[in-house]
Amino acid sequence: MANQKEGAGLPSEFELIRRIRTALPEPDPSVLIGVGDDAAAVEPGPGMTTLLTTDTFVEGVDFDVAFSSWRQIGWKSMAANYSDIAAMGGVPRHVLTTLCLPTRRTANDVEVLYAGFRDLTRHTGLSVPIVGGDLSSTDGPTVVSITVRGEAEEKYITKRCGARPGDTLCVTGHLGASETGLRLLRSSREQSVPGSLPDRFEDALFRHRTPVPRVREGGILARSGRVRAMIDVSDGLSSDALHLCRDSGIGLALDGTALPIEDGTRRAMEDLRLDPVRTALESGEEFELLCAVSPDGVDDLAAELAECTGTPLTPIGECLSEDRGCTFTDHAGRRPLRPKGYDHFRS
Amino acid sequence: MANQKEGAGLPSEFELIRRIRTALPEPDPSVLIGVGDDAAAVEPGPGMTTLLTTDTFVEGVDFDVAFSSWRQIGWKSMAANYSDIAAMGGVPRHVLTTLCLPTRRTANDVEVLYAGFRDLTRHTGLSVPIVGGDLSSTDGPTVVSITVRGEAEEKYITKRCGARPGDTLCVTGHLGASETGLRLLRSSREQSVPGSLPDRFEDALFRHRTPVPRVREGGILARSGRVRAMIDVSDGLSSDALHLCRDSGIGLALDGTALPIEDGTRRAMEDLRLDPVRTALESGEEFELLCAVSPDGVDDLAAELAECTGTPLTPIGECLSEDRGCTFTDHAGRRPLRPKGYDHFRS
Repeated sequence: MANQKEGAGLPSEFELIRRIRTALPEPDPSVLIGVGDDAAAVEPGPGMTTLLTTDTFVEGVDFDVAFSSWRQIGWKSMAANYSDIAAMGGVPRHVLTTLCLPTRRTANDVEVLYAGFRDLTRHTGLSVPIVGGDLSSTDGPTVVSITVRGEAEEKYITKRCGARPGDTLCVTGHLGASETGLRLLRSSREQSVPGSLPDRFEDALFRHRTPVPRVREGGILARSGRVRAMIDVSDGLSSDALHLCRDSGIGLALDGTALPIEDGTRRAMEDLRLDPVRTALESGEEFELLCAVSPDGVDDLAAELAECTGTPLTPIGECLSEDRGCTFTDHAGRRPLRPKGYDHFRS
Repeated sequence: MANQKEGAGLPSEFELIRRIRTALPEPDPSVLIGVGDDAAAVEPGPGMTTLLTTDTFVEGVDFDVAFSSWRQIGWKSMAANYSDIAAMGGVPRHVLTTLCLPTRRTANDVEVLYAGFRDLTRHTGLSVPIVGGDLSSTDGPTVVSITVRGEAEEKYITKRCGARPGDTLCVTGHLGASETGLRLLRSSREQSVPGSLPDRFEDALFRHRTPVPRVREGGILARSGRVRAMIDVSDGLSSDALHLCRDSGIGLALDGTALPIEDGTRRAMEDLRLDPVRTALESGEEFELLCAVSPDGVDDLAAELAECTGTPLTPIGECLSEDRGCTFTDHAGRRPLRPKGYDHFRS
C-alpha cells in the first residue's frame, strides 16, 4: 500500500519488460536468441541430455512478504528450481521467468526480485542466463513461476528409483533450519516485535530465506558412481524419503537420532520448544540432497564431498527390502515413517 | 460454487497429480524421464537448436470461464505456446504445465483442461509429450502457465529482425475473428441470452475459443528461403507488425484494404457494427503468422503454402526504409500505424 501512495505502481507492460531486460544477467555463447523474440533459441551442450523443471511460488501460499524481501523471494524461488536440476546430477543452463502481478506491486519490486534471481546465480558461480518469460496482470496474489533448462551427461543422471536394499541413505548439509526459521518469524509476528530477533537465530533465518541449492554437490554425487538414487528435500525429509523408497521399491530404517542439525538451529528449536527430530523430518524447502549410496562407498564419498565443497554427507538410514516397510527410530522408539510434508490442497 | 456443493472440489495434491498423469499424452522415445522425478530428461534431436517459450493465462484477465469451457481454455493456452514456436520456424517437442488452483476448482476441471491440451496436440498431428509441471493452491484466480521446448535447425530459425525495405509483408489465414468472437460473447451476455448465438457466428466463436497455431505453415515459410522475418499475431496485427519493423529497422506501408477477413467474420462484424479494418488490425490471439517475404518470391510461396496446408498467404503491405515510418491505408486514407494491442497493466 505504501507503494501505491507514493504513486509508483506498475508502468506499462513494455516499459516493465524494458526495465527487466536491463536487470538481466549477461547472456552467454549458448544463447542464439534471448529475450525479445517469439521464443528463445539456445544451443544444447554437445552430447548433453536436457533436463527440464518448473516451480511456482504463490504469495500467501509459498511466501510471505512480511517475512522475506523481494530479493530473498527471488533468490529462494530460483534456488528451488536449481535444486531440482541438482537432484538429477545436472547443471542449470537457461531460465524462463513468469510473473503474475497485482497492481499494488511496483516496478521496483520486480527489479529487486530479478536482483534476487541474479544473486543466487552469482552465488552458484554458474552462467545461467534468463532467456525469456511472460508477464500478466492478476486480481489475485503475486505469482512467480520459473522454468529451468539444465544439462547432464545421460550416464550420470540420477533418478529417484535405483536404490537397493543394503544401500545407505545419506543427506547433504543440515536439516530443520527452514521450518525453524519460519517458526521464528511467525512467533516474532505474534509477539508484535518484528525485526527484533536475536543474532543467534541468524543461521535459521538465513536458511529459511536464502537456502543454497546443492548444485556442485549434486554433480559430484552423480558422477561418483556410488549414488544409486537421489532426490532433493523440498517437501520434507519424511515425504521425500518415501518418494525415493516408493520409486525404488525398497523399505527403509531411518535413524532419527542421526539427522544432522546445526547447533544454531538446535538452539532455536529449543527456544521454540520444537521437537528436533520431528522438525528435521518435516521441514520443507531444505534443498539438501538425499541419496542412496552403495554401502562400501559412503566414507570415501563423504570425504570427497567435504574436500571439494565443504559440505558434509551424513548417513541417516539403511535401505531394506520393500516388505520390511519404512520406519524411523528416535528416543521414543521405532515408528512407521509417514509423509508429513506440505499438501497444497490440504493445508 | 455448484461444484463445492456437490462435494467435488480438489482432492489431495498427490491424488490430483495421479489423475493428471492418467490424462497425459503418451511419451515418446525422446523422453528419458517424464513426470514424477525432480526434473524431466529429454534427448534433443541430433543437430537441432532448442527453442524455449512460455505463456501464462490468468482467469478473468486472459480467459473467462463464462465464455469458454476448460477444454477450450486448455486448447487455447497450449495453442498460444505452439504459435510462438511456429513463429520461429520450429516444432514443439516437450511441454511443462503449471496450474495455480483456487479451491472452487475441481479435479474434473483439471482433467478437462488436460483433455484440451491433448486435443490441440492431436490436431497438430505431432507428438508433444507433457514431461513435467507444478501445482499450487491460490486464493486468487486460476493460473494456467505453459512452457514449451521446441526444436529447429539453426539455419532455418526465423527471427523478428531481418526484414528489408522492398520486402512484402504477408499474413497467413484470416484476421479479426478472435476479437469478433469475443465481442459476440460479450454482447450475448449483455443481452442475457447466452447459448443463443446464431449458427452463422460459429466460425468467429470457434476461432476465438480454439484458434489453430500455424505450426506446419511456420516450418514451410521458414524453410522456403524467401522469408526474412516472422512473428505471430498474438498482441494484434498493428502491434506485432510494429515489433517486426522496430526489430528489423524498417518502415511499413500496410494496406488495410488487403487484410484477409473471412466472410462469416465480416458478417458478424457488420452485426456488431465493428469496423472491419480496425478490428482486423487490433484483434489479438489470432495466432496467424506475419512475415516479410523477398518481393520476387511471394506468388510461389503462397502457392506452395496453399498446396501443402490449404492456408492462404496474403500480401498486406510493403516494407520501406525506416525514415518513411509505419503507416496504414484504408477507405479514409493513410494514417500512422499505432500499437493497439493489449497491455496487461493498462487495460
